Amino acid sequence: MPYIRPTDHRQPDIAMDDAHHSNASTVLRGALVGCGFFAANQMRAWQELPGVAIAALCDRDAGRLAAFGDTFGIEHRFDDIETLLTQMAVDFVDIAAPTPAHETLVTAAAHYGVDIICQKPFAGSLATARRLINICRKHGVSLTVHENFRWQHAVRRVAELIGEGRIGRPFFGRISYRSGFDVFANQPYLATLERFIIQDLGIHTLDMARALFGDVVRLSCETGRVNPDIAGEDHATLMLRHEAGCVSVVDCSYATTLADDPFPQSLIEVDGDRGSIRLAADFQLTIHGPGGSATVEDVTPTWPAWSEAPWNVIQESVVALQGDWIERRRAREPAPTAGPDNFNTLALVEAAYQSAATGQSVEPERW
Amino acid sequence: MPYIRPTDHRQPDIAMDDAHHSNASTVLRGALVGCGFFAANQMRAWQELPGVAIAALCDRDAGRLAAFGDTFGIEHRFDDIETLLTQMAVDFVDIAAPTPAHETLVTAAAHYGVDIICQKPFAGSLATARRLINICRKHGVSLTVHENFRWQHAVRRVAELIGEGRIGRPFFGRISYRSGFDVFANQPYLATLERFIIQDLGIHTLDMARALFGDVVRLSCETGRVNPDIAGEDHATLMLRHEAGCVSVVDCSYATTLADDPFPQSLIEVDGDRGSIRLAADFQLTIHGPGGSATVEDVTPTWPAWSEAPWNVIQESVVALQGDWIERRRAREPAPTAGPDNFNTLALVEAAYQSAATGQSVEPERW
Repeated sequence: MPYIRPTDHRQPDIAMDDAHHSNASTVLRGALVGCGFFAANQMRAWQELPGVAIAALCDRDAGRLAAFGDTFGIEHRFDDIETLLTQMAVDFVDIAAPTPAHETLVTAAAHYGVDIICQKPFAGSLATARRLINICRKHGVSLTVHENFRWQHAVRRVAELIGEGRIGRPFFGRISYRSGFDVFANQPYLATLERFIIQDLGIHTLDMARALFGDVVRLSCETGRVNPDIAGEDHATLMLRHEAGCVSVVDCSYATTLADDPFPQSLIEVDGDRGSIRLAADFQLTIHGPGGSATVEDVTPTWPAWSEAPWNVIQESVVALQGDWIERRRAREPAPTAGPDNFNTLALVEAAYQSAATGQSVEPERW
Repeated sequence: MPYIRPTDHRQPDIAMDDAHHSNASTVLRGALVGCGFFAANQMRAWQELPGVAIAALCDRDAGRLAAFGDTFGIEHRFDDIETLLTQMAVDFVDIAAPTPAHETLVTAAAHYGVDIICQKPFAGSLATARRLINICRKHGVSLTVHENFRWQHAVRRVAELIGEGRIGRPFFGRISYRSGFDVFANQPYLATLERFIIQDLGIHTLDMARALFGDVVRLSCETGRVNPDIAGEDHATLMLRHEAGCVSVVDCSYATTLADDPFPQSLIEVDGDRGSIRLAADFQLTIHGPGGSATVEDVTPTWPAWSEAPWNVIQESVVALQGDWIERRRAREPAPTAGPDNFNTLALVEAAYQSAATGQSVEPERW
């Protein structure tokens, strides 16, 4: 690996403020850390977006690293993040490694004064999450969680309609994700997780609930397992009381048999005091207004050229999240899914497992 | 009022067993007690059904009694149930009076050895419910709660499919009743109730949840009020853990704006380990089976000739409940919504208000 230009990790604040970072015309240079199943989506999105380039890859698995690097034409490859950060001048790392590796990776990047994007769940516990957020703050680097579901085109439209007051004050919502899609085929480790659907999928739909209805003051959760071949729960039903007053149901299942399986779409209902929103599986969004009016919008996304069904729903959201991240990075604004925000989503996951285990309602922790 | 033939209320067991009651060809004679808004549906259903006749009416409001009697051609009219039961030989009373009157009416009928049908909520508290059930047992009379939602044609079909094992073991259900229908126009007293939607409507959908998924071991509930002109809650969201393992969401609202308002229909989802059921507002019932199969059944009811939209959904169920009651009465079997069964539905209502008030999950009482 060639020596490029090390960021001076002893002076991260200076590094943060140099002209290289603030000039909008300069290409942001990133390193993708972790070259597994989902990382390819993040890679393709970076390649599609202007003003950004992945300058290096990092993975402990040599075969995976080589294959990924060859596929995407990335020359600089590392099996160790410290070496990468020492040798490469990057503005950010995009961490797509599994959760147990996040603490080491985030800490290293923070020490090198490099901004961080990190896959969800960004920490294995709230204590770790809190520590990582504080480390990033201390080192003056931004920490953004790659929480992409709220970035889905249809979800953004629902959020926009709520924000515009089109249905008045929301008092009820449902975010429903019910599928029989074989997620274990691409990600066999999912079958071994003691905590499965809430941690893997519910975390996304809970984040959507927060994005649409705000933070949560109380939560109840019931879980179960249908599939005998997996370790964790494969269906979960949650009821949330949001601080702003809305009540929402967040239900998810990978044990649901549907002829027209909506994977990986979430169906959404929102009732407000002046109207309702219904998002159906075919991307038909109906806005019900006073006096029996109904407007139907087709919110089918513009799919990235490289996307493929059924993953295109997610892939489009990855581009949206990363595109927004670039703009925020240039404007020095925290991303919507910055660490402190995502801490509160992670806290819902913890609260959900606690509620399911105890049969009691739980008040989630808050940042 | 003429003297007809008093039932010997000192010997109710003898009265229960006499030939009059056991002969299937004999017309069952009933008294309708309470001539308010909903009683007309029960009256028309009795008039439609063979083998039964309403022989007398009872209401404390003279004008209402006269109008109702004239409308339905019922000559024998009483303003007092004791007088009615003394003067008329009836096999049953159908109590359509408000809940606060039930204790007096049920107790009187039990003392006269007369079988009882009673509108929901059949008691204002679980203690009263328990007392009334025991009084009826002591006097050897049957007590059936006029809980009709589970008798809706579409709901019966869903129950039948579950019973047949068409979707395997149910692990998730949703019963959703969301409407903006102005129920206060016909029943203005509803606006004055401190306990509104759960007690008036949720009680029905909770009973449906019990009918479909069995008894409930744990419940959480969140409520709210959108309409500023009423006293009680107009939306409620409940999550139930059923003893057999299923988790269900029961949500209801009279504050929901929908262009195609489904009032008074409930939409149903059931996920089983071998298939799913979806009941849509247009009475299209889809049964999803393994391997992507889907069967659509049109479960539009055969409407009673006298029924009128949108009430026809309910009116059809009233005929079904009362028709079943006649058969059970002749066979000396308890009705599905007999007192002890309905006690457990009433207990869900109590648990729901308790959960909403405390923010805690509640284990409902059970008979």
